[in-house]
Amino acid sequence: MKKAVVLLSGGIDSATTLFSARAKGYRCLCLIFDYGQRHRKELACARRIARDAGAEYRIVKIRLSWQGSALLDKKIKIPAGTPLDTQKIPATYVPGRNTIFLSFASSCAEAIGAEAVFIGANAVDFSGYPDCRPQYYRVFNRLIRQGTKAGVQGRPLRIETPLLHKTKGQIVKLAQQLGVPLAYTWSCYRGAKAPCGTCDSCRFRAKGFKEAGITDPLLKKP
Amino acid sequence: MKKAVVLLSGGIDSATTLFSARAKGYRCLCLIFDYGQRHRKELACARRIARDAGAEYRIVKIRLSWQGSALLDKKIKIPAGTPLDTQKIPATYVPGRNTIFLSFASSCAEAIGAEAVFIGANAVDFSGYPDCRPQYYRVFNRLIRQGTKAGVQGRPLRIETPLLHKTKGQIVKLAQQLGVPLAYTWSCYRGAKAPCGTCDSCRFRAKGFKEAGITDPLLKKP
Repeated sequence: MKKAVVLLSGGIDSATTLFSARAKGYRCLCLIFDYGQRHRKELACARRIARDAGAEYRIVKIRLSWQGSALLDKKIKIPAGTPLDTQKIPATYVPGRNTIFLSFASSCAEAIGAEAVFIGANAVDFSGYPDCRPQYYRVFNRLIRQGTKAGVQGRPLRIETPLLHKTKGQIVKLAQQLGVPLAYTWSCYRGAKAPCGTCDSCRFRAKGFKEAGITDPLLKKP
Repeated sequence: MKKAVVLLSGGIDSATTLFSARAKGYRCLCLIFDYGQRHRKELACARRIARDAGAEYRIVKIRLSWQGSALLDKKIKIPAGTPLDTQKIPATYVPGRNTIFLSFASSCAEAIGAEAVFIGANAVDFSGYPDCRPQYYRVFNRLIRQGTKAGVQGRPLRIETPLLHKTKGQIVKLAQQLGVPLAYTWSCYRGAKAPCGTCDSCRFRAKGFKEAGITDPLLKKP
């Protein structure tokens, strides 16, 4: 059975990516990063989703002591209420985050003989992060071909981004079709008991459910 | 004063790179990786060298639980005595190691406003590791331009490889000129009390001192 490494954050995009990889016949090993994020709540969600998908997972603990992001540093305000904008890079940008995640994931993939790394990057309904755009993934795949033993020996190893060109509505629909446990996904950057509803991540999520014509299970009255 | 992040392992190449960056007028922050290497001894050497250079340093602790290298896994034999070969990738190759190190270093550089990341990669007297070759660094610099906020905003941030095309002899000579404390550098993959003299790293080191016409202070009789 072909193997894949999946970056799993606990949000809808990465959960849908995991279920997509599984549907494509991959045996998945999920990497869940504990990187000092304020919304630590997503870690428990990610573990639960991995178990739900019948996938193995590992927690990778790293610390970016240099911070430089509202997601790491409580002194920086998480933007709220400003228009959603895919052209501006907001304060929630974490310097080099996807490069760090992908570097671990491709190392793991090479070591275990997996042929793909799946990441739920999206370049349509997204916060303008440069490491979510198609050109970034093209260059990263070139880096793997040039810089790994697998790459120079011509063995298959590549980054897969199945959600890159989908709208948030299309992602939520796909999640439902694939049986993603949406009630266990977590998007809010604040990580309080209930989603704040005002951060960019909450608002992209709301946009997705609205477009898909589905009620967000996190917002249902108990 | 312009700032740089320097990857410091404790070997001659990274120490010489640190002293080169300092000579070029950079204020240097060294990142020292504790990644589960068998030759942990290099960590103490790296700290000592950073202090000697008057540079700040941070220890970055990571664990590659998937291993896949003789430098991480004691069950895999460290090659010894086979001809030094820059065309074959030996068992000491760590999957994706430099990509992981550079991903942290460029994240740090972006966060602190440094304009360069220095790495002591060498593609002349080296073990054939694909992530030490010029084409790999060209692609990594493209990744920074495409995938970071600094890159897309046109701020300077690049990987510098001052030793890439030097022989080991030229590196040892340069180290001496720059005042690198060679007695505190450590190269041996085994990390025992004294260098083994047989691993590839010891043999490249010996070649360098021989070519430079200098006695290795680690091999001087007490």
